[in-house]
Amino acid sequence: MKIPPVKGTRDFYPPIMARRNFIVDGWKKASLRNGFEEYDGPIFEYLKMYQIKSGDEIVEQLFNLTDRGDRELAIRPEITPTLARMVNQQVNSLPRPIKWFSVPRLCRAERPQKGRLREFFQWNIDIIGIDDVRADAEVIFTAIDYLRSLGLTSKDIKAKISSRKLLSALLRSIGIDEKDLSAIYVLLDKKAKLSDEAFEEMLTKQVPDKVMQDKIKHFMAVDSVEHVVIENDEVARAVDEVKELFKLLELMGVADFCTFDMHIVRGLAYYTGIVFEIHDVVGELRAVCGGGRFDNLLRDFGGPEIAATGMGMGDCVLEILLEQNGLIANDLPTRSIDYYIICTEDLLMMQAISLTAKIRTAGKCADFSYKSGKVGKLMKTASELKAKNCIILGQEFIDGQELVIKDMQTGQQKQEKNETFITSL
Amino acid sequence: MKIPPVKGTRDFYPPIMARRNFIVDGWKKASLRNGFEEYDGPIFEYLKMYQIKSGDEIVEQLFNLTDRGDRELAIRPEITPTLARMVNQQVNSLPRPIKWFSVPRLCRAERPQKGRLREFFQWNIDIIGIDDVRADAEVIFTAIDYLRSLGLTSKDIKAKISSRKLLSALLRSIGIDEKDLSAIYVLLDKKAKLSDEAFEEMLTKQVPDKVMQDKIKHFMAVDSVEHVVIENDEVARAVDEVKELFKLLELMGVADFCTFDMHIVRGLAYYTGIVFEIHDVVGELRAVCGGGRFDNLLRDFGGPEIAATGMGMGDCVLEILLEQNGLIANDLPTRSIDYYIICTEDLLMMQAISLTAKIRTAGKCADFSYKSGKVGKLMKTASELKAKNCIILGQEFIDGQELVIKDMQTGQQKQEKNETFITSL
Repeated sequence: MKIPPVKGTRDFYPPIMARRNFIVDGWKKASLRNGFEEYDGPIFEYLKMYQIKSGDEIVEQLFNLTDRGDRELAIRPEITPTLARMVNQQVNSLPRPIKWFSVPRLCRAERPQKGRLREFFQWNIDIIGIDDVRADAEVIFTAIDYLRSLGLTSKDIKAKISSRKLLSALLRSIGIDEKDLSAIYVLLDKKAKLSDEAFEEMLTKQVPDKVMQDKIKHFMAVDSVEHVVIENDEVARAVDEVKELFKLLELMGVADFCTFDMHIVRGLAYYTGIVFEIHDVVGELRAVCGGGRFDNLLRDFGGPEIAATGMGMGDCVLEILLEQNGLIANDLPTRSIDYYIICTEDLLMMQAISLTAKIRTAGKCADFSYKSGKVGKLMKTASELKAKNCIILGQEFIDGQELVIKDMQTGQQKQEKNETFITSL
Repeated sequence: MKIPPVKGTRDFYPPIMARRNFIVDGWKKASLRNGFEEYDGPIFEYLKMYQIKSGDEIVEQLFNLTDRGDRELAIRPEITPTLARMVNQQVNSLPRPIKWFSVPRLCRAERPQKGRLREFFQWNIDIIGIDDVRADAEVIFTAIDYLRSLGLTSKDIKAKISSRKLLSALLRSIGIDEKDLSAIYVLLDKKAKLSDEAFEEMLTKQVPDKVMQDKIKHFMAVDSVEHVVIENDEVARAVDEVKELFKLLELMGVADFCTFDMHIVRGLAYYTGIVFEIHDVVGELRAVCGGGRFDNLLRDFGGPEIAATGMGMGDCVLEILLEQNGLIANDLPTRSIDYYIICTEDLLMMQAISLTAKIRTAGKCADFSYKSGKVGKLMKTASELKAKNCIILGQEFIDGQELVIKDMQTGQQKQEKNETFITSL
């Protein structure tokens, strides 16, 4: 009986696993280099965890399950709620700032399409306890630091940055009611994906007043923070914060990757300050990553009010982007064999296995051919496995316990006593 | 609203994550050193995948879910069915032997207890395509190689080894019917966990004949493969295979870790040859790992008949064992900061951030204090974070762009021009 994999999931055969490791290991290295510590939570949580942060709408995207105690659970579609829960649990004993990262496996029951699967990996970094735009700068820097370290340049990607505080201040300055802000955020966030007509129509539904509509369209079209009209003190403070952020990013050496963009809104209601997304410059793909400040989340999860900012980067869009830019190989090594041991006669097999075990015990990578046979054929296998050296047990071994060791790169061969080789390991 | 984690799961705070990484990274290294390639599958599969291998009984231990297309799925309780599915899918193009490893996250809805949780990690290694006891030897060697590399000795752990072929031949030699074997395997597997009376009673139920009962008890009590009574050719062949295995393990240098033990049966019906478990010598814990040969599994999953052998090692019992033997620290580093940057005045903060970014861009790990202040207090933080060096931006920087760099291990301090330091990175 043949069974297929479940729709929207991936089988990580060794060459594909090597690509996943290339991405995930890079995330880990960039996180550690930037001073973040790794954490993780369970693969499932109580269903209501996800309703708190993102509302009932996310429930449709969840893989739900009930456990034996009839508890309603869900496979995690994101890790931020787990982060909030974990930080709240130990909020008094964790030294601040809390700078944590994670590379969770996440599942969402969405329609699979380019750059979007039902199961994926997502790099998350968060800084908790710093109520200052410096922390937002550090998050954006870290994301760029990673992407740049892979070889992506400011010609390939841009971090588009805006501010919820600024947008909120502007919307309220023209008379939008506080309670209507969330719905407008969702609409403005979708703008890029809508036709002009569809957007007009939906905007009219949200904001019937034509003058207000024009004002919204006017300030959404601003292409530099310098051009924002300072309507009041609140707008002024929000503008100053954005300007400070850009100054910091310049000092950190990533200004060329960063641009101000009012259209970056982020759909979710929980953002409270700086928001950003990193996009491919060509604009063909979904966002490579997105994030921002969320100062109320820990409170919403039953904890104290603590400032927080962070970002998430999935592996699917990233892999396409790296592929398009020739920055991820198709034949990344799946292992790295220092010595591949072969023997010409079956009676030498025990010796070959013994030698293999000794090399491994010495901490080096060794593998052996389960079949004895002709040197040429076995050497071909060594070459296919990309072994660095091939050790041959043949007549030389029978005659005088001598190994023939061939450097597979240079082709050079030498003979060495078995014992001498082993003690030299 | 405060929400707890789900029963039987763990929150991996950074110090706990560091322990998980210590274990998982060790598994990966040992696998690669022994010539295995990493693979992985999805976190969920079709429910029926698990029924094929382990019967309906496993369904009780599954976390079931249905997706939007009403497909019946389950979070993976083991990865071997996924392995079988994946190998079958590419069976003609994969070079053999297939030597694969994986470190999957698995979930089982069992009652949580010591060494058993509802969510855990399990190291799996498998060799597919080798119908020879040499492959079984390699699997056992690899498991011991890992455990030994952590500092465990043959005084701490033993690999208890037996053979399903031998047990089956012995049982049939005394007149047990082929169709009754599975039920007897399950019973013999449970023996160690049962009282003598309970075992007697259950054995009588399975095998009413008193003479047959005694014969079973007699050969189960054999403590060396040399003492097995050779009833027929089949028994003789099975004994020879076990002897060859022990000879190989001796040549591989792990004989002192290995012992013959008829009581190792493994409950699951799918084992077909050598079976083994590694236990703590004290005998207080569940098995650290278990495995064996399963030559029919790929066929059962709709593929061709291909020889296979492998093992699985969970993280929960292992961590307890390492803890008991003082082989895993409680304070493993969660990150390793090369430079911690502090400044004495807020006006130097921008410079501190800029310097931090430059060190990171050079590929080294740097972090900075979000607060300026007294050197003593900030230096204490650097020390708590176990930073290797602390860089102070103070009066020397204001006066002449000079950094004070302190080696936190030796306590030695030096002054260096900011530019000189940066170019030296």
